Amino acid sequence: MDSDFFKQHISQQFNAELEGIIKRIMAMGGLVEQQTIDAVEAMVTGNVEKAETVITSDYKINAMEVALDETCTQILARRQPTASDLRLVMAVIKAIADLERMGDEAERIGRMALHVLEKDREVAPMEEFKAMGGHVQQMIHNALDSFVRMDADQAVRAVKMDIQIDSLYEEIIRQLMALMREDPDSIPRVMDLVWATRALERIGDRAGNICEYVIYFVKGKDVRHTSFEQMAIEATGDGRE
Amino acid sequence: MDSDFFKQHISQQFNAELEGIIKRIMAMGGLVEQQTIDAVEAMVTGNVEKAETVITSDYKINAMEVALDETCTQILARRQPTASDLRLVMAVIKAIADLERMGDEAERIGRMALHVLEKDREVAPMEEFKAMGGHVQQMIHNALDSFVRMDADQAVRAVKMDIQIDSLYEEIIRQLMALMREDPDSIPRVMDLVWATRALERIGDRAGNICEYVIYFVKGKDVRHTSFEQMAIEATGDGRE
Repeated sequence: MDSDFFKQHISQQFNAELEGIIKRIMAMGGLVEQQTIDAVEAMVTGNVEKAETVITSDYKINAMEVALDETCTQILARRQPTASDLRLVMAVIKAIADLERMGDEAERIGRMALHVLEKDREVAPMEEFKAMGGHVQQMIHNALDSFVRMDADQAVRAVKMDIQIDSLYEEIIRQLMALMREDPDSIPRVMDLVWATRALERIGDRAGNICEYVIYFVKGKDVRHTSFEQMAIEATGDGRE
Repeated sequence: MDSDFFKQHISQQFNAELEGIIKRIMAMGGLVEQQTIDAVEAMVTGNVEKAETVITSDYKINAMEVALDETCTQILARRQPTASDLRLVMAVIKAIADLERMGDEAERIGRMALHVLEKDREVAPMEEFKAMGGHVQQMIHNALDSFVRMDADQAVRAVKMDIQIDSLYEEIIRQLMALMREDPDSIPRVMDLVWATRALERIGDRAGNICEYVIYFVKGKDVRHTSFEQMAIEATGDGRE
């Protein structure tokens, strides 16, 4: 975040509090990103230990959410922020709710990884799943980066990654349905792959939500429920970037 | 909500603002409840007109969310509420985010209803889907009711409905997997039923989130990520109700 943003506050203590919540949301986001990487790896390679680590680590993300939400509410009560300070705290409150759910989805992928058998992995579109995971991880990374910099242009670019993710998602689901058709005995296990793919897609969706809060913070405009084109216009002022 | 809550404010205007956001979230919640009822009916009966109404009405819920979120942010900036007033505004901000997503899921069910064929309806567990829809609708209704009354006991009872909903969900998914196995040609259409069932289950989950905000408002305790048992203890003080 632009250091000028913090210089404007007369109270150094308030500055420190706002910087503190930004640092903590970045730590939380970093953990969610790592959980997503580990969950995808567990699914693709069948690494049971990694899957179990993902499952047993989710409580850390939950605890971070509850603590950070509490800190933000305290800041609202004690500092009574207005204008951009208020928008920042609101953006943090909303973003941590999304991050927490992203952690839940990563945990779900970890659980599903334990159900899939080696013979399923051999026929399932695991390369595509891995590629989708890579895009989702990059999208989380860029969303968090746009958040810490409060860079609306970067947020718009990050949101656009969702197009590739959705396209891979459709392709994987199509291939999984073909697998079920070829080998009906595999249906329950292939359904676990379907749920994992869905969970990965939803992590991307929620990374997109975080980008929308960045655009709202920077532009003071609510870009939820608008198209990519409209979002780009709001964020850049001319619709080109 | 207890009318004493509003009497405590010296400013009648502030009272009117808080009452206003409660009225508006109830209107928004009522629309979400109706969309859920209509989406389930469209799926069960194949009523195309109803499905299309659900799909074309979702924008209203989105617009309500954006407007209400803006009003809440303005109240935070101008009134700088503390204590229970602040907790109320925070509960509203979080609840409208869930309601908006519930509307999205209802729209998804409406879309899926258009894909399912009459011959699928004849073999699919539509009675169970209808029963699950009834429970979800009741849970939304009770969650909203607990919100307007800020009744933590009622909120706990509403959360517990999720157990029955999850049980029906598991049963429906099991039956749908059996259908796919019997008739592999039907897999793509049965998958649409799977997505609709999942969407309905998620509406219930989010109604549960709203109940948690009520408990937080009343008790000042964050009950996310806790068990039913723990939640009952936090809400009632003795764990029995």
